[in-house]
Amino acid sequence: MAEARGLVIVNTGNGKGKTTAAMGMALRAWGQGLKILMLQFIKGGSGYGELKAAEKMPGFEIMAMGEGFIRDAEGDKMAGHRQAAREALARAREEITSGRYDMIILDEINYAVGFGLVSEEEVLELIEMKPAILHLVLTGRNATERVIEKADLVTEMREIKHPYASGIKAQKGVEF
Amino acid sequence: MAEARGLVIVNTGNGKGKTTAAMGMALRAWGQGLKILMLQFIKGGSGYGELKAAEKMPGFEIMAMGEGFIRDAEGDKMAGHRQAAREALARAREEITSGRYDMIILDEINYAVGFGLVSEEEVLELIEMKPAILHLVLTGRNATERVIEKADLVTEMREIKHPYASGIKAQKGVEF
Repeated sequence: MAEARGLVIVNTGNGKGKTTAAMGMALRAWGQGLKILMLQFIKGGSGYGELKAAEKMPGFEIMAMGEGFIRDAEGDKMAGHRQAAREALARAREEITSGRYDMIILDEINYAVGFGLVSEEEVLELIEMKPAILHLVLTGRNATERVIEKADLVTEMREIKHPYASGIKAQKGVEF
Repeated sequence: MAEARGLVIVNTGNGKGKTTAAMGMALRAWGQGLKILMLQFIKGGSGYGELKAAEKMPGFEIMAMGEGFIRDAEGDKMAGHRQAAREALARAREEITSGRYDMIILDEINYAVGFGLVSEEEVLELIEMKPAILHLVLTGRNATERVIEKADLVTEMREIKHPYASGIKAQKGVEF
């Protein structure tokens, strides 16, 4: 029996599959009876396949606390993102120390750092405060050096080819 | 409403997350009501989190048709892998054309090609024979150029840091 130890896992890079791989981890962990929370820093809304799936998977919760698409946000829109990220961060602190979960996924938190919605320092604090047994998964492009340093497992997802480039539309069940 | 079109998706590279991201795709697709088959070319056995999860997810099937760890296999052991791969390939042909699934994941098929268990030509034929609407996901390191050429979406998962390197054991719910 291997010693139980919570890992800090980072999925970063410019490609698809960072959040998707985190969902795959959630699926595997859920199969083993673990309790999982995915807390989304950017994504909000409903209708996503993963939200519908989680509704049917007791023990796997997704909280979509973001405001959605951020890349070109300015002014009021950016203030909304900032506020949403503060709330997600407060929630992350609370849940990480709650003992209610075996795995917590902070989805797109690295991306939120890139946009200045959350500071690198705050992310490092989340890692520091986690119980030893908790698996903490951080996704999003541009994970910082210091976050990578604190992680046990880091994977970079690189885009080699993307269907949008050849004019194919987003497909239900794949992209959302 | 976007036009429904089945994508050919390849997850390759030397990092974690190729199979895991495919499981995440399965989870999202399952949430949208799609029927999914994951056919594993290398992995066999039981006890894996994803198998336990799929048992609780009607509409998501996993067939673990491999013989397990292959890297140092020789002689009889390699013959067993070869035979298992032939059976998995026959099953893949049958299920791809069956119309029973909306998404089929051929897990580690690229890796099986790398070991000469399946030929590149046979993989290209599977892609050719797929119904237009079917999403076909091919995982495994060292996807060949011609397979990448046929794909719509290709992601390379690169290992940046791995916990085994620092002596941490495989963790239930994360690694298996």
